[in-house]
Amino acid sequence: MKLKLKTVGVIGAGAWGTALATVAAHGGCRVLLWSRDEAHAAAINATHENARNLPGIALPKSIRAITDPALLSEADAVIVAVPSHAFTATAKLCAGHLRNGILLIVATKGYIPGTDRTLFGAAIELYPGTRPFILSGPSFAAHVARGLPAAVVLAGMQHGDVARLGNALGIPSFRIYFSTDIAGVQAGGAIKNVLAIACGIAEGMKLGDSARAALVTRGSFELVRLGREIGGRYETLQGLSGLGDLILTATSRQSRNFSLGVALGEGRSLAEALTHIKGPCEGIAAAPGFAKLAEKMRDGAPITTAVANVLAGKLTPLQAMEELLDRPLKFEAGNNPEG
Amino acid sequence: MKLKLKTVGVIGAGAWGTALATVAAHGGCRVLLWSRDEAHAAAINATHENARNLPGIALPKSIRAITDPALLSEADAVIVAVPSHAFTATAKLCAGHLRNGILLIVATKGYIPGTDRTLFGAAIELYPGTRPFILSGPSFAAHVARGLPAAVVLAGMQHGDVARLGNALGIPSFRIYFSTDIAGVQAGGAIKNVLAIACGIAEGMKLGDSARAALVTRGSFELVRLGREIGGRYETLQGLSGLGDLILTATSRQSRNFSLGVALGEGRSLAEALTHIKGPCEGIAAAPGFAKLAEKMRDGAPITTAVANVLAGKLTPLQAMEELLDRPLKFEAGNNPEG
Repeated sequence: MKLKLKTVGVIGAGAWGTALATVAAHGGCRVLLWSRDEAHAAAINATHENARNLPGIALPKSIRAITDPALLSEADAVIVAVPSHAFTATAKLCAGHLRNGILLIVATKGYIPGTDRTLFGAAIELYPGTRPFILSGPSFAAHVARGLPAAVVLAGMQHGDVARLGNALGIPSFRIYFSTDIAGVQAGGAIKNVLAIACGIAEGMKLGDSARAALVTRGSFELVRLGREIGGRYETLQGLSGLGDLILTATSRQSRNFSLGVALGEGRSLAEALTHIKGPCEGIAAAPGFAKLAEKMRDGAPITTAVANVLAGKLTPLQAMEELLDRPLKFEAGNNPEG
Repeated sequence: MKLKLKTVGVIGAGAWGTALATVAAHGGCRVLLWSRDEAHAAAINATHENARNLPGIALPKSIRAITDPALLSEADAVIVAVPSHAFTATAKLCAGHLRNGILLIVATKGYIPGTDRTLFGAAIELYPGTRPFILSGPSFAAHVARGLPAAVVLAGMQHGDVARLGNALGIPSFRIYFSTDIAGVQAGGAIKNVLAIACGIAEGMKLGDSARAALVTRGSFELVRLGREIGGRYETLQGLSGLGDLILTATSRQSRNFSLGVALGEGRSLAEALTHIKGPCEGIAAAPGFAKLAEKMRDGAPITTAVANVLAGKLTPLQAMEELLDRPLKFEAGNNPEG
């Protein structure tokens, strides 16, 4: 049966929440864009623009900013686009107002600060009685809001559910691929942050595009190996939310993790590098765990391990790159899915 | 047994041949860099610089430019770095002078003009009595010559041979991964040119980085599917000579195929676009064959097919992109190696 969404709620009126609101609006839905900030919501409604986060982009009239979470009870589906530091607090404000059994799309990545719980994992508890999905993939909010093409992955626990929701939400400029591999989407989204730091380091050291292409390619082998260890599937890890997001991240200073790597590669200390970066660098928290996991794996994950060592102050970026280049040469088959 | 190369010959003193000569020289070999152009060779020997192709880069003194092909008989291994249009002619000049059973590394990609014979395939006949290898991967000559890091793949018919030669030729800044998948290296190097045109079209249409990341990622699934159809292996196609080369190509106007796509995406006709590009665009000749192959495949290869249709004048770039975005949504598992 085809799913038709009449009203979509979006929790979080930052750049990404607003961009996803435009997708739902262009798909024909009425959108309730929730912000806890009265002035921000009023400005969006008055100007049909999110001047703070997406200046210069006209928003569809069918988007209405709200601050009363009780209005979210009108929604058939809710997208959560709240960054990690505000994730728990907004859930406490909003969760009680959602319809029972509602479709809940977690569209931000990362972990509850100071824990190893992913936002998606936390959402299941913070939004009880909902049917949770995860949305991930290479896309910048400003591109999506402008209607430039992007392709992402929507993963959920049930095959039919995902296809129905994906078909209801997708529009031509925002292609949604379906997946039931929630573990893989989460794993890819976490590992790519560590690899993005490595690509940033190479950029900061001015090692050139060939080095970056090699780091992304060999890094994608690590992403697949590590992600499979924690339950992800091959096609997901090598897909839009894994490799795809890595490709975008590894070529853009819009990524915090990449920018952190650039600063480190330019010779700054970690503390110094962090002063220049707004928001969390998820790769810092993720690196030690993946490096530890790599120790147990036959082929290891040398790039991931190198990043962890740099972040821990055990290696300088130069030493890390030298170590990567000085390893024994070997056959390429480090990514053999059958192996 | 460890292989030690005393003298390495390089056929072709363009940018890539000269760059590979520096690799061999930095690895401790004496290098004979053959050019058919007396003035070019004399200038290289006088200035220790290839001012025509790699201006401003000092070449190691152990590189000696030569024009007498008979001197190549001193070489223990020979690298062929000649573009397709000169491949046959130089082979006729040089092949007769090589030692019997010599290690021959074909380092340029593509086809003998007007045929579907790859340079590697042709080399086997044009250089009879040699042991042929193929070298491929994401690397710009100027980067390699400057000693910036790159990683590539060397494929040969025998496991032990490849490892020995790779270990003898590799240096830290030029990491050589080994492979026995000659078919996969050739397939990846051919398909990525078609996909690079698609990425260029998106760039020319100013569709943004998210679109490019999606094209590269979904394109890599096509590259794997098509490459496996013609005998390539998964890890090779998803590796440095396939995906890796695609990543580099898809982000650089140094690539002719990408540049062709940019011109098409900006609205130029094929004929007009080609006037701006120096040298062959291998993707033009390759696209129809791969599009035909895709017709027989369950999941097809929509990006490849779209490029073929644009090149054939059946679709405008805008129509092609709209068609790509308008396809039915589906599960991501288009790349399942077990499937």
